[in-house]
Amino acid sequence: MADANLDFDRYHRRGYPEAVYCASKSLDQCRNIARMWRERSDTEDVGTVLFTKADRERAAAIMAELPDAYYDEQVHLLAWPPTPPQPSGGRVVVACAGTSDVPIAREAALTARYLGREVVELVDVGVAGLDRILSKRDILTSARAIVVVAGMEGALASVVAGLVSCPVVAVPTSVGYGAAFEGVTALLSMLNACAPGVSVVNIDNGYGAGHIAAQIAAPYDTRSPDVADSRLVEENSHA
Amino acid sequence: MADANLDFDRYHRRGYPEAVYCASKSLDQCRNIARMWRERSDTEDVGTVLFTKADRERAAAIMAELPDAYYDEQVHLLAWPPTPPQPSGGRVVVACAGTSDVPIAREAALTARYLGREVVELVDVGVAGLDRILSKRDILTSARAIVVVAGMEGALASVVAGLVSCPVVAVPTSVGYGAAFEGVTALLSMLNACAPGVSVVNIDNGYGAGHIAAQIAAPYDTRSPDVADSRLVEENSHA
Amino acid sequence: MADANLDFDRYHRRGYPEAVYCASKSLDQCRNIARMWRERSDTEDVGTVLFTKADRERAAAIMAELPDAYYDEQVHLLAWPPTPPQPSGGRVVVACAGTSDVPIAREAALTARYLGREVVELVDVGVAGLDRILSKRDILTSARAIVVVAGMEGALASVVAGLVSCPVVAVPTSVGYGAAFEGVTALLSMLNACAPGVSVVNIDNGYGAGHIAAQIAAPYDTRSPDVADSRLVEENSHA
Amino acid sequence: MADANLDFDRYHRRGYPEAVYCASKSLDQCRNIARMWRERSDTEDVGTVLFTKADRERAAAIMAELPDAYYDEQVHLLAWPPTPPQPSGGRVVVACAGTSDVPIAREAALTARYLGREVVELVDVGVAGLDRILSKRDILTSARAIVVVAGMEGALASVVAGLVSCPVVAVPTSVGYGAAFEGVTALLSMLNACAPGVSVVNIDNGYGAGHIAAQIAAPYDTRSPDVADSRLVEENSHA
Amino acid sequence: MADANLDFDRYHRRGYPEAVYCASKSLDQCRNIARMWRERSDTEDVGTVLFTKADRERAAAIMAELPDAYYDEQVHLLAWPPTPPQPSGGRVVVACAGTSDVPIAREAALTARYLGREVVELVDVGVAGLDRILSKRDILTSARAIVVVAGMEGALASVVAGLVSCPVVAVPTSVGYGAAFEGVTALLSMLNACAPGVSVVNIDNGYGAGHIAAQIAAPYDTRSPDVADSRLVEENSHA
Amino acid sequence: MADANLDFDRYHRRGYPEAVYCASKSLDQCRNIARMWRERSDTEDVGTVLFTKADRERAAAIMAELPDAYYDEQVHLLAWPPTPPQPSGGRVVVACAGTSDVPIAREAALTARYLGREVVELVDVGVAGLDRILSKRDILTSARAIVVVAGMEGALASVVAGLVSCPVVAVPTSVGYGAAFEGVTALLSMLNACAPGVSVVNIDNGYGAGHIAAQIAAPYDTRSPDVADSRLVEENSHA
Amino acid sequence: MADANLDFDRYHRRGYPEAVYCASKSLDQCRNIARMWRERSDTEDVGTVLFTKADRERAAAIMAELPDAYYDEQVHLLAWPPTPPQPSGGRVVVACAGTSDVPIAREAALTARYLGREVVELVDVGVAGLDRILSKRDILTSARAIVVVAGMEGALASVVAGLVSCPVVAVPTSVGYGAAFEGVTALLSMLNACAPGVSVVNIDNGYGAGHIAAQIAAPYDTRSPDVADSRLVEENSHA
Amino acid sequence: MADANLDFDRYHRRGYPEAVYCASKSLDQCRNIARMWRERSDTEDVGTVLFTKADRERAAAIMAELPDAYYDEQVHLLAWPPTPPQPSGGRVVVACAGTSDVPIAREAALTARYLGREVVELVDVGVAGLDRILSKRDILTSARAIVVVAGMEGALASVVAGLVSCPVVAVPTSVGYGAAFEGVTALLSMLNACAPGVSVVNIDNGYGAGHIAAQIAAPYDTRSPDVADSRLVEENSHA
Repeated sequence: MADANLDFDRYHRRGYPEAVYCASKSLDQCRNIARMWRERSDTEDVGTVLFTKADRERAAAIMAELPDAYYDEQVHLLAWPPTPPQPSGGRVVVACAGTSDVPIAREAALTARYLGREVVELVDVGVAGLDRILSKRDILTSARAIVVVAGMEGALASVVAGLVSCPVVAVPTSVGYGAAFEGVTALLSMLNACAPGVSVVNIDNGYGAGHIAAQIAAPYDTRSPDVADSRLVEENSHA
Repeated sequence: MADANLDFDRYHRRGYPEAVYCASKSLDQCRNIARMWRERSDTEDVGTVLFTKADRERAAAIMAELPDAYYDEQVHLLAWPPTPPQPSGGRVVVACAGTSDVPIAREAALTARYLGREVVELVDVGVAGLDRILSKRDILTSARAIVVVAGMEGALASVVAGLVSCPVVAVPTSVGYGAAFEGVTALLSMLNACAPGVSVVNIDNGYGAGHIAAQIAAPYDTRSPDVADSRLVEENSHA
Repeated sequence: MADANLDFDRYHRRGYPEAVYCASKSLDQCRNIARMWRERSDTEDVGTVLFTKADRERAAAIMAELPDAYYDEQVHLLAWPPTPPQPSGGRVVVACAGTSDVPIAREAALTARYLGREVVELVDVGVAGLDRILSKRDILTSARAIVVVAGMEGALASVVAGLVSCPVVAVPTSVGYGAAFEGVTALLSMLNACAPGVSVVNIDNGYGAGHIAAQIAAPYDTRSPDVADSRLVEENSHA
Repeated sequence: MADANLDFDRYHRRGYPEAVYCASKSLDQCRNIARMWRERSDTEDVGTVLFTKADRERAAAIMAELPDAYYDEQVHLLAWPPTPPQPSGGRVVVACAGTSDVPIAREAALTARYLGREVVELVDVGVAGLDRILSKRDILTSARAIVVVAGMEGALASVVAGLVSCPVVAVPTSVGYGAAFEGVTALLSMLNACAPGVSVVNIDNGYGAGHIAAQIAAPYDTRSPDVADSRLVEENSHA
Repeated sequence: MADANLDFDRYHRRGYPEAVYCASKSLDQCRNIARMWRERSDTEDVGTVLFTKADRERAAAIMAELPDAYYDEQVHLLAWPPTPPQPSGGRVVVACAGTSDVPIAREAALTARYLGREVVELVDVGVAGLDRILSKRDILTSARAIVVVAGMEGALASVVAGLVSCPVVAVPTSVGYGAAFEGVTALLSMLNACAPGVSVVNIDNGYGAGHIAAQIAAPYDTRSPDVADSRLVEENSHA
Repeated sequence: MADANLDFDRYHRRGYPEAVYCASKSLDQCRNIARMWRERSDTEDVGTVLFTKADRERAAAIMAELPDAYYDEQVHLLAWPPTPPQPSGGRVVVACAGTSDVPIAREAALTARYLGREVVELVDVGVAGLDRILSKRDILTSARAIVVVAGMEGALASVVAGLVSCPVVAVPTSVGYGAAFEGVTALLSMLNACAPGVSVVNIDNGYGAGHIAAQIAAPYDTRSPDVADSRLVEENSHA
Repeated sequence: MADANLDFDRYHRRGYPEAVYCASKSLDQCRNIARMWRERSDTEDVGTVLFTKADRERAAAIMAELPDAYYDEQVHLLAWPPTPPQPSGGRVVVACAGTSDVPIAREAALTARYLGREVVELVDVGVAGLDRILSKRDILTSARAIVVVAGMEGALASVVAGLVSCPVVAVPTSVGYGAAFEGVTALLSMLNACAPGVSVVNIDNGYGAGHIAAQIAAPYDTRSPDVADSRLVEENSHA
Repeated sequence: MADANLDFDRYHRRGYPEAVYCASKSLDQCRNIARMWRERSDTEDVGTVLFTKADRERAAAIMAELPDAYYDEQVHLLAWPPTPPQPSGGRVVVACAGTSDVPIAREAALTARYLGREVVELVDVGVAGLDRILSKRDILTSARAIVVVAGMEGALASVVAGLVSCPVVAVPTSVGYGAAFEGVTALLSMLNACAPGVSVVNIDNGYGAGHIAAQIAAPYDTRSPDVADSRLVEENSHA
């Protein structure tokens, strides 16, 4: 019996394909899903599939079916087909507080890139040395969505949000020890950011943040029109 | 001695003015801040100020200085000046799971409206009776940003995100009892939404969600251009 | 000295035999218990014994005494004698949200099956793609008890309960990471299901859910009569 | 604008009507919902509505629209129409550990009774004096579903489940102090009951437990047939 | 530099020697402490030393210095000198709920025994089959202190305390999974035992419970006299 | 219908009567239980009943039935009959860390006194000024059981246990704020006391600690004999 | 019987007198302690006593004995004698993130001032508008100890510590709602500050932070000499 | 692309160089950072760099670039250049409660030593045997800053702070098991120390505590002057 029931329709319904979270799947399950994806792609455009949190063993199982997939071992991410689409929409900036946050930051960056956005990364710009982030204000203000990745106390999210007009998607990481509680402290900190404009995803969920940033920065022509052109009339509308 | 040091520059720096969180401020503090705001607005355009989580007593203290402010007693929100701007940008849809979630949903809706967006509300569309939300797919897909407000198990966020292409900003509410833990369960549930595209704000933070939705749905002409027009060149860019 | 004191009477007292939770037992303890069971079964009908959460090493220790036991390595479950009884009573449906939940779902299914029920499994029907579960309404409504197995935000329990008249037994799984907290989020979510009719068992406790489902769907002739035939009279009765 | 969107279809779809959780609703919302219910019942059979966790003020608001509703002030429950249906199906037994647990136990009992079951209550039968519960074995074994209500350490659920063949639905209560953590200890204890056959609902959720008990003990003629009569054939069936 | 500063005076001051908790010590530290103990015992009576939570590696390091020490590998306990003293004082009964609790129960039993008490163990007498513990009432009532060891929901402590007049020292164990939270559930349950007379020690702390039981059951001639003989007069005395 | 089912047999079975926890009971329930107790005492010796955590309102309801009961308003404790028994057994010392801990310390002291022990209280002897406790070593060593009552970090329990040979029963109190977490910090601290000989009861459970201390210090003639006189023979005995 | 046992020796032993935490004391207890303090001061120099967390009722009870005490109603602090000492030692700077944090910040400031330091306050300088704190670098670098007071995500502590060479004592406040968890989030955030030099006190413990800051900034002539002058020789010294 | 962006300016800005937290960095990242440090030190005085929480593998990667670095394998700390500076400022005393706490205590001691202070260590002086710490009062009072390192219930911090006039920096350790919760209990205990003068750093953060102690005990000539010499005038100053 098959253990999976893939939602291929998602690409058409939402504009973004399903991704496969591999960490809790067996090797057999990973390989079977890769095969199902390959077979479906023979008959239909189902977009670029991402396999997330795939260690080397799982990556090998997947690449047995999709040998030309792109694999980033530091990030534990596979993408297939391996070539990202031509960038469209606005710029996504991904900023991370420390060197230890780089793998999650890159997961966000690669996700946004494979979903079609241009991405700029800013690395090791934590608030203990404020000049590191303050010297990047030009890049920050050029973004249509910013992903902030930080562990420990996660203060970078508040600081960045206070500097820009676009939304910040914050990713707490499990970097730290003791009362960092595997990322819970950064998560709570980001949920309480004193600067509005910060929303938060799960701990270490670089994929999720990259997905949302790609949605926020989607090209104008694929999104609902500005309301001046809107004709839908609703009772409860505050227009 | 003054207890406040307002960040009037925020409106110019970020495009959205500071809001005043009133719940933990004394009546004197609330009134002083209202007066500072009024005085500054005599000499400078500082945008529309929102006072959040203001009970009747605090609202009275504020309206002693800003007597023409708009006050929604159910939502505990004041806005001044009282007339929201002409809508611009894309549509924001605010959907809430139950009747008890309405005050927080309306806080989000009013915030987005006062920050310049058109807003449509969908009330009491929780997943216990799926037809309630499924019958609103047209409205959902017309949005450029959706705010989902839910307490208890917060399942509505996952269900809505699975239906649309735009980002969902989820607001857990403190509705529920026992193991709802004042909204913690809904918060955790939303952080683990099985459908990508959901980011989360603090429990009962309708203001924050409305702010982010307004940022996401900002009009095209106030945002950074699509990358085709971008000329900034970065080493780390994944373009 | 023996470390165990088995409750063989349970099969006669409750209609269901004791099961042996193996994860925290030593190999010696597992083997001793298997031997005690085999010896007792020589003289008395003690039903079908299940050994749960038995990894390969423990399974080998048990099968040294019960070589013909059934062992499902994915599920970590042994049953002896290996042939399940002829199905009686109503149907049990086991639905799981994702591929990663399959081992726990199958633990529930096998338990209910070995306790005498017919079982139907629905795999990978999570709410991110609602069609997957909505297309199975016929099977859902044919059940006398439904087990819903889900990790992450556990929203499937609410959605299923909203569609059917029979009780739902929800099993949170430890699938997920970060703020999934090893299944705590799914557990809390299910305890707060907005649709009534959902009760919950421990995280990853497929065995427990299968047991309860088997009890709910027990055949009519083994259960207490409908109250029309009841003659017990109680002071506090609300009849 | 109306704040509610009632799921009247639930009675037909599930066999049990929606209940209204009042604790977090305003007086206006409670009254409006009561009126909507009354108006709908003029044209359609929508079953017996229950209003739960309704303090006196909310009860008064509801009874302004439904003056003949039944109200139990200790339980904070209203039912309308006030006369429960003729009992059908099997017996539900509700057992509570202490005097302080009585209001929640009675909420479960009244719910099951209004949903159509015969109910017997056993009061103050906690395990500190085991004779109290052991002397009631005849009543316990006459049940088709048992609700166990307990605060503090919640040990009664394990003890009762070990004595009977029918399922036990456990309700932790917020009775206790200090490390009882408003019912969390009883909740966790019940989730880890060493006797299988126990499933759990939210803290103080007498309504939910009564609902599930009513579902479990539903009359034979309203439920899916025994599998001998079943003709649905499924690939994944373990039959 | 020495890493330890042993409290040899404790044996004289308290009547019970210091024990050495090994789990977080390095092999060198364990060996050094063993040597210090041996050297001191050449010149002074310092009682019987216990080394707790010592895995095989640490046991070997200790036995390099104390080769005739008693080591129980299941319990991870060493005692030196290896022969326990002649029993004195009252009886200690150690009862455990399940087979998996045996190592911790035996740690309590051995500790009480090495501190000079007679000990009787009752194994696998959990409440899921009440007859197991009820059939041992004679032994329970012969005790001057009872140690109850249980994981999961820890209900055995309440049940035993309700049957006897002597104090119960409860030891929660980390047996269980999911919402057992490594023993936290049993800990909380025992702290909320509905029967008075239960006090609690740390999770898996069999040593601590055995120590306290030995103190409670100390022989009459080593303890403070009955108050009839007491001559100390205090202002705050409630005599 | 009566809401209570009192365990009058407890006095004969355990030697200590049932106590009535009043905080979560209604006034009617409190009064009814008082009446049941008075009526039973007319025909049988049922010992001294204690009503714990009874505020003034509940005390008045109880004293309507037992007008001569002793009531300590600071402690929220009633005792009936009001005169404590002649002291027997050993001395109980109750030591509390601060002035704020006095009500709970006195609850322990009164409980032990009403259960028949002599009691000495030591007040405000916290470790911030060590001389306060060190100057009381004579009293401490005269005790057969010591109750230590402390909030905040609860360090007094470790310090006292390190000085004496008798067992220490520790009561964490909810004194403190912020990260004292209503007594949880003191509870955890006491469970991890670095000096063996400390067992713990629930937060603010002065009653429970007094009960256990009374059991530990029970007179020699009411307890099981020293083992030299013991004739019970058990297989598992470590004698 | 007196409920208090004041540690008057502390002033001589430590150089700082005992303070009285009033929140959990009864009015009688507060008044008695005030009287004891007044009486002792007649015969001995016992320094300046502070009464913390004293609401108006408690303040009145204290001022019945010490009518000339200084009372700050916003801060809930009394000092007696009311005149602070002449400043000595280095400067203490107290910076708070928002207007709502002012009462706790002032508690810290007043404590340090009454313990003999010069104090400068910086109000409402949170990181959402970085210019507010960056414009105060001169004052920050003039301090010998800095107290940072912040609720919500507490990011200010990291930012300030990154700018200065002196130690930062961080006070999390209970300002915020939802996932601010009454200050727990700020507490955890500060414990994980990415800039070294931050130590933390309890939530809302302005008194404690002011005390430590006063100790750090104590005048040179009251402290141990620089090591060049030190003559104590220790084996373990790393000199 | 480089993963690091070192804050070399910190040494000049704060007087203490950046340290490198290695636990969550890859071997490549560790080596790259070591190389960047070496290269920078060729052209500029950047102080002594510490690498913390570096296991053997990471240490090897670092020493590939900095072969003469000092490495303490028990402490997991590297320092480069390897020779600590001549001691200046006041004495730092580091006291730890048990043998298991030694590695963290030594991390604090080495940090303070490499930042320029004289350090004295006191080992295994926990409160279970009070004489161990009381006999060291002379050393304690010679300190200008004391670091207290303890696991389990962390009581040593309160006891030490009660004896001295200088500030205590408390380091909870993860020593213990069960309800020690990997150091959380000690952390909470220390945050609630009943003696003022205790501030707390993260669990196992010996580095952080050593850093703060070095800052507190900095030499007089590197710190802001005593206020008598201060000329800065501030509105809010409490002088």
